[in-house]
Amino acid sequence: MAVAHPHYLKSSEKRKDIEQLMVPNAPLAAPIPQPTILSQEELKKIAAFKAVEFVRSGMVLGLGTGSTAKHAVDRIGELLKSGQLKNIVGIPTSMKTHEQAMNLGIPLSDLNCHPIIDMAIDGADEVDPEMNLVKGRGGSLLREKMVETASKKFIVIVDETKLVDYIGGSRLAMPVEIVPFCWKFTLQRLEMLFTDAGCVGRLRTEGERGAPYVSDNGNYIIDLYFDRDMGDLKAASDAILRLAGVVEHGMFIDMATTLIVAGKNGVTIRNKD
Amino acid sequence: MAVAHPHYLKSSEKRKDIEQLMVPNAPLAAPIPQPTILSQEELKKIAAFKAVEFVRSGMVLGLGTGSTAKHAVDRIGELLKSGQLKNIVGIPTSMKTHEQAMNLGIPLSDLNCHPIIDMAIDGADEVDPEMNLVKGRGGSLLREKMVETASKKFIVIVDETKLVDYIGGSRLAMPVEIVPFCWKFTLQRLEMLFTDAGCVGRLRTEGERGAPYVSDNGNYIIDLYFDRDMGDLKAASDAILRLAGVVEHGMFIDMATTLIVAGKNGVTIRNKD
Repeated sequence: MAVAHPHYLKSSEKRKDIEQLMVPNAPLAAPIPQPTILSQEELKKIAAFKAVEFVRSGMVLGLGTGSTAKHAVDRIGELLKSGQLKNIVGIPTSMKTHEQAMNLGIPLSDLNCHPIIDMAIDGADEVDPEMNLVKGRGGSLLREKMVETASKKFIVIVDETKLVDYIGGSRLAMPVEIVPFCWKFTLQRLEMLFTDAGCVGRLRTEGERGAPYVSDNGNYIIDLYFDRDMGDLKAASDAILRLAGVVEHGMFIDMATTLIVAGKNGVTIRNKD
Repeated sequence: MAVAHPHYLKSSEKRKDIEQLMVPNAPLAAPIPQPTILSQEELKKIAAFKAVEFVRSGMVLGLGTGSTAKHAVDRIGELLKSGQLKNIVGIPTSMKTHEQAMNLGIPLSDLNCHPIIDMAIDGADEVDPEMNLVKGRGGSLLREKMVETASKKFIVIVDETKLVDYIGGSRLAMPVEIVPFCWKFTLQRLEMLFTDAGCVGRLRTEGERGAPYVSDNGNYIIDLYFDRDMGDLKAASDAILRLAGVVEHGMFIDMATTLIVAGKNGVTIRNKD
């Protein structure tokens, strides 16, 4: 199996050092004819299946949440059923993934019993050139971060539309989980942290009546939108976490160890160590 | 009214610069005869009444929680009733204080409507020589921190038993509010941050059956106990907040602007700016 570089790549080296695995050469279930234009959904599936190739029998696995991770969980269930994988314990990152994995017959446990996880596989909403991520647009950023922090290896699977020049660069949401108590006050404070980056926050709502979306942990989500690069991500992270009322944010800084990107021209794998 | 120093005192200057207000000279409701030995409860009341002397009509006031703050809230209610204070808006730091203030007829609002508070008055479980605090043994550390972060002035009222050489020095709990999800894992991670300080954590429970105590925000509380000084408090604070699963901790670093201590030999007031 073609495995990518064991050393971290500097920004300037990235393009030339990225390992290009053309889709037909990759050991996928079925080769995909070259001229076919793949849908985003198919690309997600290709990245997910590629990640599952790294899974070994006996592993404790963090199971991600979202449309890309769903394919990986499906695939793990398939390989367990066929006997190609054995003795897997899954640690789901959301109630939704818990249900999906249960239905697939994947044995499940939690962080209390397995505080160290061999490998986590999950999607991301944004990936910057340093492999920092935005996650949690699906609403389960806190559990995802708890599980993925506890993982020795964290494989991120995305289609190429998720690559950004800087965090916030997609102009889509960077979610922050907050306690419901005085959420407007917390929203104001969040915006004030990033006035230079033109930050605007919005309470996530659901349903016709626009009721606040409630996370698995009973909290609200503020979606932050940035006009410009917020700069130093670690400083930004600490500033957000220092606000009383904030539970967690959706930036996953320095956490991914492998990135698998499925694009129209193939699959690329990048390792960081 | 005797007001303490407008400038921040260095550690070495503290003892000699502390303003000693002997109880009989302080403008309390009734002079207390010198030889009387005061109970801890009476000392708490003296500190609380002294703090309320700083309150002016028209102020937006953060109302603290706990046995000492309760006296301050009672006193504010009393002065409103007698007409000595007018046009006060209270921002309670817990459901308990909300109820108390409602019963006293203090007009109430919240941080959404009043994101800037003129003054907060609250107790503390520990106060170190730099006026850093441990708070939240009563369980409402998150709301207290939200309100007191938003306050231009924050008066801390304690009896002298709360003074410690370093945070954790009382050997009593430093509380951390966490999400219930996989709390044992978060407890382990917290202990691991402070192995050098001999840190032990315990889930706070209540009732005969030892059910987990649930905060106003639906979270659990881990009580941390330290054998030794944890060192740099700001670094410790950031390390705790970076743990996914942690909502907030009970260290209030660099937040108090005035400290009022009631002791057997009188009341001391110290300002920090």
